[in-house]
Amino acid sequence: MMAPRVPKQLPEPPSEDHVTDIAFTAFDHLCMAQALRLAERGAYTTKPNPMVGCVLAKDAQIVGEGWHQRAGEAHAEVLALQAAGDNARGATAYVTLEPCAHTGRTGPCADALIAAGVSRVVAAMRDPFPQVDGAGFDKLRAAGIEVQSGLLEAQARHLNRGFLSRIERKRPFVRIKLATSLDGRTAMANGDSKWISCEASRLDVQHWRARAGAILTGAGTVLADDPSLTVRLGDDTPFVAPLRVVLDPGLATIARGRVREGDAPTLYIHMADAKPPREIQAQRAVAATRDGKFDLKAVLELLAARDVNEVQVEAGATLAGAFIAAGLADEILLYVAPVLLGDQARPLFGGLGIQDMEQRANLKIVDARVIGQDQRLLLQPRPAA
Amino acid sequence: MMAPRVPKQLPEPPSEDHVTDIAFTAFDHLCMAQALRLAERGAYTTKPNPMVGCVLAKDAQIVGEGWHQRAGEAHAEVLALQAAGDNARGATAYVTLEPCAHTGRTGPCADALIAAGVSRVVAAMRDPFPQVDGAGFDKLRAAGIEVQSGLLEAQARHLNRGFLSRIERKRPFVRIKLATSLDGRTAMANGDSKWISCEASRLDVQHWRARAGAILTGAGTVLADDPSLTVRLGDDTPFVAPLRVVLDPGLATIARGRVREGDAPTLYIHMADAKPPREIQAQRAVAATRDGKFDLKAVLELLAARDVNEVQVEAGATLAGAFIAAGLADEILLYVAPVLLGDQARPLFGGLGIQDMEQRANLKIVDARVIGQDQRLLLQPRPAA
Repeated sequence: MMAPRVPKQLPEPPSEDHVTDIAFTAFDHLCMAQALRLAERGAYTTKPNPMVGCVLAKDAQIVGEGWHQRAGEAHAEVLALQAAGDNARGATAYVTLEPCAHTGRTGPCADALIAAGVSRVVAAMRDPFPQVDGAGFDKLRAAGIEVQSGLLEAQARHLNRGFLSRIERKRPFVRIKLATSLDGRTAMANGDSKWISCEASRLDVQHWRARAGAILTGAGTVLADDPSLTVRLGDDTPFVAPLRVVLDPGLATIARGRVREGDAPTLYIHMADAKPPREIQAQRAVAATRDGKFDLKAVLELLAARDVNEVQVEAGATLAGAFIAAGLADEILLYVAPVLLGDQARPLFGGLGIQDMEQRANLKIVDARVIGQDQRLLLQPRPAA
Repeated sequence: MMAPRVPKQLPEPPSEDHVTDIAFTAFDHLCMAQALRLAERGAYTTKPNPMVGCVLAKDAQIVGEGWHQRAGEAHAEVLALQAAGDNARGATAYVTLEPCAHTGRTGPCADALIAAGVSRVVAAMRDPFPQVDGAGFDKLRAAGIEVQSGLLEAQARHLNRGFLSRIERKRPFVRIKLATSLDGRTAMANGDSKWISCEASRLDVQHWRARAGAILTGAGTVLADDPSLTVRLGDDTPFVAPLRVVLDPGLATIARGRVREGDAPTLYIHMADAKPPREIQAQRAVAATRDGKFDLKAVLELLAARDVNEVQVEAGATLAGAFIAAGLADEILLYVAPVLLGDQARPLFGGLGIQDMEQRANLKIVDARVIGQDQRLLLQPRPAA
């Protein structure tokens, strides 16, 4: 057994358009920070498109704002231009992502900015999407517009880490969500795990589900806990329902479970030689296995091909541990409840194969806060020092 | 095996002198908060005496401050009166604990306050020490001084939880200190535990050691890790070195170890029939055992009789778990390092005897913060809802 590997990191940002020698002003920062806030409003609805926000400013005043709300609907730049009207002429456009240069379901934003007479465009980052990838900047520059990129780029990349992972690594960004006791246990020996975390934590999880493109679990969890894996925000916040994905080699659970109920789609991933029951209608896909275990990289590539940006894994210790051991866990979302379950209870991760201290998996705390009675930690892998 | 018990709580404050129907002013609160800050300056040096701070104020101005620094030296009130000089006449004295009425190693503070002409005394709490216990307030009132108690009492009790435990429960306050991985493991299967927590956490521990009256460990930890259990603050901050206590039924470790080196005293607690080697000079005490395991309540009573207010347990999973299972852990100081050690590594607590979810040990987070790369949690038992 190998010790856990550190995931291949997202590539460093390309340096070509990356402006580091320009001192952006405080007002530039203010506008881009606002554009990022606007972009994030689309977190539950823009997928599989990236979140994008746009602020138009002239004479140290914001004259228009917009954010991309749903794939197929208007882009952030177009909405901001509409809001600004005639004030767009001579304005600076702050965009969290390079404006598009191609005609997709909507026309190219670069053309719209040119037509409106914008004089300067500041982007947080280049768009790695193959049909853009610098072409937006080129088009703007060719029209005589001043273009700068790289303002609050780290924040913009963090916001769209799912989209960037799918485009740059050809696989979704993987977040492992788990609730644990203080002593690192997720369930009693008898399997009982209801409820370790507090109600506030369970509601908080819904927001992370809402931004995911898929929620992935294993057949064992379906059999043991029968989760519905739907988004329940408790209000009328709009969201695009994430795909529910069940890793079920032999399709043992396809006939049952709350995971098939409700409006959200469900996808079963199984071995090539599984025999699906004829009468059951369900989305299915085949992924390679070895010794009865899925090739998790192949599973993720399959989900990327279905335009999934972020996968939230909500599974047991074995499957969660397998993602970590394979170096495919980009983020761990851990709710730590202040309870002790004892050393007979079930471990947080199985199969990490760590034999000595040098093999330990090193993480870093990205965010730590109290949620109700619990602690919530957001962690990312840290390469050994 | 029983499920862990919740420790008997410290008694509620006595209501006799407890003033809840007086609206203390904002200035009263300011002065008492300052007195509490002053008191805490003695955290490493006043033991076994309680920490006490005193502020003298007149005409909405602070005219004198003092805090108790070392047992046998001047009390907080006397130092504040010295600082105030003639301004003490007609002033209000804010004290974090009822002024003493008896002659110990110093004269009664109540008499000093009367002699200085103080007109009002506001105390955070009554002193449960048998030779005070209301007699200080009585003496002040008999001299015509206005006396009120109960301002910021919860904070004052938290500050002196060690002293109060020894006086009110006849046993020290017990803090269990542990460093754990995210997945609740304290060491590899081979025993390697150096270093799970980061350097900043290891320095932070020294401050908690410095305020303890005793640091307690087991013979197993002495054999495996050979800790010195001394206070190493890395500067010239004064402290009274805590007693190092080794629970060693058969005195197997008495001839060895860093725990015997240095200036701090060391006490071995052993079974009645252990045979101490003749040539070794060491402090020893006998405590009752059952099936080769110490009666931990008897151990704590023995330490209380030696004037230990706070015990910091720095031991392995078994002894730490035994304190929790016996309902004798008042506080858990947990350093959570963002690493994973896997399910073959050693558990945080052994022997809790928890079989189902209803038996879990419920705690509450008293304090949570980031220390270096780690999370530090301070937890206290929470009775089941």
